[in-house]
Amino acid sequence: MGKNILITIEYDGTNFSGWQKQPNVRTVQGEIEYVLRYITGEDVSIHGTSRTDAGVHALGQCASLEWNSSMPIEKLLEVMNRRFGVAGTGRSGAGGDIRIVSVEEKPEGFHARYSCTGKTYRYIIDKTRDIFIRNSVFQYPGADKLDIGRMQKAAKEIIGTHDFKCFETSGGTPRETTVRTIYSLTIEEDDTNIVIEVTGDGFLYNMVRIIVGTLIEVGEGKKSPDEIKQIIESRNRGNAGFTAPPQGLYLKEIFFGEEETCV
Amino acid sequence: MGKNILITIEYDGTNFSGWQKQPNVRTVQGEIEYVLRYITGEDVSIHGTSRTDAGVHALGQCASLEWNSSMPIEKLLEVMNRRFGVAGTGRSGAGGDIRIVSVEEKPEGFHARYSCTGKTYRYIIDKTRDIFIRNSVFQYPGADKLDIGRMQKAAKEIIGTHDFKCFETSGGTPRETTVRTIYSLTIEEDDTNIVIEVTGDGFLYNMVRIIVGTLIEVGEGKKSPDEIKQIIESRNRGNAGFTAPPQGLYLKEIFFGEEETCV
Repeated sequence: MGKNILITIEYDGTNFSGWQKQPNVRTVQGEIEYVLRYITGEDVSIHGTSRTDAGVHALGQCASLEWNSSMPIEKLLEVMNRRFGVAGTGRSGAGGDIRIVSVEEKPEGFHARYSCTGKTYRYIIDKTRDIFIRNSVFQYPGADKLDIGRMQKAAKEIIGTHDFKCFETSGGTPRETTVRTIYSLTIEEDDTNIVIEVTGDGFLYNMVRIIVGTLIEVGEGKKSPDEIKQIIESRNRGNAGFTAPPQGLYLKEIFFGEEETCV
Repeated sequence: MGKNILITIEYDGTNFSGWQKQPNVRTVQGEIEYVLRYITGEDVSIHGTSRTDAGVHALGQCASLEWNSSMPIEKLLEVMNRRFGVAGTGRSGAGGDIRIVSVEEKPEGFHARYSCTGKTYRYIIDKTRDIFIRNSVFQYPGADKLDIGRMQKAAKEIIGTHDFKCFETSGGTPRETTVRTIYSLTIEEDDTNIVIEVTGDGFLYNMVRIIVGTLIEVGEGKKSPDEIKQIIESRNRGNAGFTAPPQGLYLKEIFFGEEETCV
């Protein structure tokens, strides 16, 4: 039995067909497993906390793996980042779009997915037309006219434990329940962007992107903050707002247990 | 005889094999001519001021073209940007990595290349390892230890009219002379990056990137500011510094005549 390892991963999702390994396409899981096989000469399977979609980014995705190699885990981070072509590691030409943030040993029984007790997502709505950041923000035409006060009022109606079926795209992994708890949902604005951060015990398929689309419609006056309660109670996806696109979304942080944080 | 049009263009060079049209690869000139043919139904040739290399960006590239279409030029900017998939134009899925900044009519005889009297380039050296900006800055490992004062002292030796053969990569377009005038060369630093801006009447092949590489070597103490004069006088590429990579370089602004600026 090898060591139980947790890796924390940052990635730019632009050039990936999402997290989950699939044949014939470039995925984050596929790239990491490829590099681990290159390093160890053996197949190494990793178990990610979240299956992020194509175009979605991560600042703190987590994954568990069993480590049977003689290489000390202290060295693993450095060796992997060089293979990924991270700036400053002396290797270029690779994508440079995955960076291992940390590698740590965990007790037996710990699992990146099953031990997760909560996550924080960040969504960035950009007010500029800066082409150089087009893949890492949502450049929404009316962003500079959104009423942030209205959006914050709507956000308060979302916080708490509710059946969030209205914020779920059908077709995702089947779930036992669509009840989730949102611990916090903040909206902050500066000159160039609007940053929405949401922390919860778990999220349904596309839930953050639909919450963002709904909040935008509230900010535009198309929906009222007072309607949110009814929308949630309706359990009807058709009553919620549009699904905001993937490029504005970041898996920011993953929580394990009460005290322990992945990043 | 159609109208003489000048377009100013911003582009993210990451996914282009440079400016100049070539068969079977994606180039900025090729994309713009493709879109003009789509719009007009006819072949339209454009004449760019600078042939930027693969990976090099532009904030204010310029190009001339003859406009024979009945479409008013006021509409051309909007129609082109929608085709390019610029954010907020209601079209997505295209690259989104070219944006037309302005379209203006010029007198007969004006030409984006031959009427150009000067250019400003910007080069960004980044001190972070932020993977999300890896293609639009040079993430140099020792950037936070560079001695900016030394680099500024060396920059003063470069300003002026000199034979800059030492800062030229061989293999570019043959030139009548390697004498150029550098009007200004500034180096500014903040917490996350170092920005070098250089304005001159013209530049040799890779000249800005070699100047940047040379300044970095001065900033690291490998070269002394006092050596710059000798390096220039030697006319020997081997005495100058390394060629900084393309992703940090931006064609910022193009000047025509004494008063007129492209952007």
